[in-house]
Amino acid sequence: MPAMRATILAVGSELLSTERLDTNSLRLTALLERRGVELIKKCIVGDLASELAREIRALWESSDLVLVSGGLGPTADDLTREAAAVALGVDLREDPDTLAEIERRFAALGRRASPNNRKQAAVLAGARVLDNPNGTAPGQLFERDGKALFLFPGVPFELDRMAADALVPWLETHSDGVARETWTIKVAMRPESEVDQSLARAYAEFGGEWITVLAGAGEVRVLLTAVGPDRQRQERLRAMRERTLALLGDGVFGEGAETTLEFVVAGLLAAAGWTLATAESCTGGLVAERITRVPGSSRVFVGGVVVYSNQLKCALLDVAPELVEREGAVSEAVARAMALGVRKRLGSDVGVSITGIAGPDGGSVEKPVGTVHLALAGPPGAAVEHRAARFPGNRERIRMFASQMALEMLRRRLIAARPARPAEDVR
Amino acid sequence: MPAMRATILAVGSELLSTERLDTNSLRLTALLERRGVELIKKCIVGDLASELAREIRALWESSDLVLVSGGLGPTADDLTREAAAVALGVDLREDPDTLAEIERRFAALGRRASPNNRKQAAVLAGARVLDNPNGTAPGQLFERDGKALFLFPGVPFELDRMAADALVPWLETHSDGVARETWTIKVAMRPESEVDQSLARAYAEFGGEWITVLAGAGEVRVLLTAVGPDRQRQERLRAMRERTLALLGDGVFGEGAETTLEFVVAGLLAAAGWTLATAESCTGGLVAERITRVPGSSRVFVGGVVVYSNQLKCALLDVAPELVEREGAVSEAVARAMALGVRKRLGSDVGVSITGIAGPDGGSVEKPVGTVHLALAGPPGAAVEHRAARFPGNRERIRMFASQMALEMLRRRLIAARPARPAEDVR
Repeated sequence: MPAMRATILAVGSELLSTERLDTNSLRLTALLERRGVELIKKCIVGDLASELAREIRALWESSDLVLVSGGLGPTADDLTREAAAVALGVDLREDPDTLAEIERRFAALGRRASPNNRKQAAVLAGARVLDNPNGTAPGQLFERDGKALFLFPGVPFELDRMAADALVPWLETHSDGVARETWTIKVAMRPESEVDQSLARAYAEFGGEWITVLAGAGEVRVLLTAVGPDRQRQERLRAMRERTLALLGDGVFGEGAETTLEFVVAGLLAAAGWTLATAESCTGGLVAERITRVPGSSRVFVGGVVVYSNQLKCALLDVAPELVEREGAVSEAVARAMALGVRKRLGSDVGVSITGIAGPDGGSVEKPVGTVHLALAGPPGAAVEHRAARFPGNRERIRMFASQMALEMLRRRLIAARPARPAEDVR
Repeated sequence: MPAMRATILAVGSELLSTERLDTNSLRLTALLERRGVELIKKCIVGDLASELAREIRALWESSDLVLVSGGLGPTADDLTREAAAVALGVDLREDPDTLAEIERRFAALGRRASPNNRKQAAVLAGARVLDNPNGTAPGQLFERDGKALFLFPGVPFELDRMAADALVPWLETHSDGVARETWTIKVAMRPESEVDQSLARAYAEFGGEWITVLAGAGEVRVLLTAVGPDRQRQERLRAMRERTLALLGDGVFGEGAETTLEFVVAGLLAAAGWTLATAESCTGGLVAERITRVPGSSRVFVGGVVVYSNQLKCALLDVAPELVEREGAVSEAVARAMALGVRKRLGSDVGVSITGIAGPDGGSVEKPVGTVHLALAGPPGAAVEHRAARFPGNRERIRMFASQMALEMLRRRLIAARPARPAEDVR
């Protein structure tokens, strides 16, 4: 049996401007992939009835499942219902239950539904009405000749709820279960090419087309993909994951598409019972800002200082003025002094520091833009650690790289300090 | 004469995954808008020859100008040339100049072009070859019956160059000059509905369809659009801009799509000759991080502290422990003391402070999640200013709102302190 083929249509003139992109389709795509449905085309059309009807008809003809989002509101611009009726050659009928529900909502607000609002009760003949608990526009599911068309609202959180309630169960009963699943493994501060080389054995074993390496600023994502019936797919994915983790070793900081380095570091700090303080120059507070994105980070993060001026490096962090004078503010010695100083002054277990030149100005021949010194002090008894780097790119990328390296230094210190696994766990 | 209608097609299976979005189309859209060409549809298809040919034919039939990006490489997946030939019913011919150029490039690397590489010299019969100075895949322009099809490479910087070299001049001679232009005006910390009401007179004067109000976290963008020949359009846009600025008054913090509040505030600080220090609790350094995104901000920003613990609020900012005890860390009194303390301890002209509950934990009945107190101290002689707010949304939005409000307080203080315009400028 060939895989089911799907198409996605986003409706709305604003999605054809330079200001907005259709992102609803990404979340619908994830649901399709999980059930092995192949997406063959995505389309975005404006609020033009003829073009909309033409497109729905073309998608209906070329695929088994058509997912439409947007154009279900009450205004004159909202034409999806009418266009779908024309495209499929069916009538629109006023659904009494939907109309009653709309009137009830308006009555609750002490108002009357206008004729425009009544429009939202128009349903394709033969379609099933899909509840919209998060909004007023109900969705619709129309099926004929083994094909299906879903009409969803365009508001993301309304669409998400309706997709979960109606599309996911529909896919479970209609798709053939040859699902595609992707697992993400994340690595910090290693070049894409190095990660790629480390994975040579995994490519040979599983086929390179199932393993994708994607690079960002200071972060490489490895995407493992498997297809097939549930059990086979999951076993293959587990084997790929184990091999990949073995090959990348402790370079891996986390797993899952949503994992962030700051989240992992906050978790490791909590597990170790250590508190953190930060001293930042060129990153301007980015490390502190990232750590405090993590809910509950107040348990591990005591605070930080942003010391843009040399004077403040001395006044707030006890860096000796002679040191700044002799070595320069962007130097190993000052980075070390800042890390020690912030740890002592803020009373944390560990202190990290960053001093560097993010540009565009301030570079020199010996210290070009992108030069960054980082240091990590603590916990008590550990030697102060230092790293120097010369990051490429613009101000934003240099700051991102530097914050990433600081967090990665911290992560490595934390996993190195982790006690060996207790004997009872090793059995 | 009706406006020229365009469609855009992006080719590539990776653009149908959950990992990537087609963003090439945004930049092509901007070029179309500038020349008054109406975009009626965007499409994304994978590397499937039949679907690709079908789509190109459909776009060719429904629009005057079809812009295709991607699928011009040398691999088996690159099918755009072949699909376009099928869709238009023309042959592909090997272009001798293009082939010679490809062979020259390979020879320069000491290698020979493979048959796959030769594929890149295949040109639609009657098409013009478009130079690709940034890559190997040449583009193509095919014209028939007053319609045009452009084939562009998918790599953004190759496409941008080719669009500038070939599409822009083509649009200049072929579009009717009824260009569309948009101007952006930005407002901070005012509700969308309030901005909308303020603009009632502008809607009446210019027509509501030309003025769009878009809301973000603590920021409203007003987009003014005008169409028409250069001179009329610019005059209309100037009139719309003047009316809008008059109606919104000093609520407007900046103009242009790229302007940010931190950029404006850094500029005003520099103009006033004031230096800034920040004291942040729930925003975790976000205000400092935003200000230091601005190149050259070291001239106005001395530094900041992130004080996540109550103890540090006292130790680093001289907040009296009794005050924290009596009023709570999230209170007007503590916000005021923090702003005064950071100004004094860091030696700046002005100090801003934020203390609040970003959630998800830490809320109470009297102080629910989203409660934030902000204060602004300085410059010398000015009274300390305080604001309290209860922001909606999740941790990320609350932090964004709070940083936005701090910057907006600062901006208002800066413009209020600005000397009256000197007499010679008023003439």
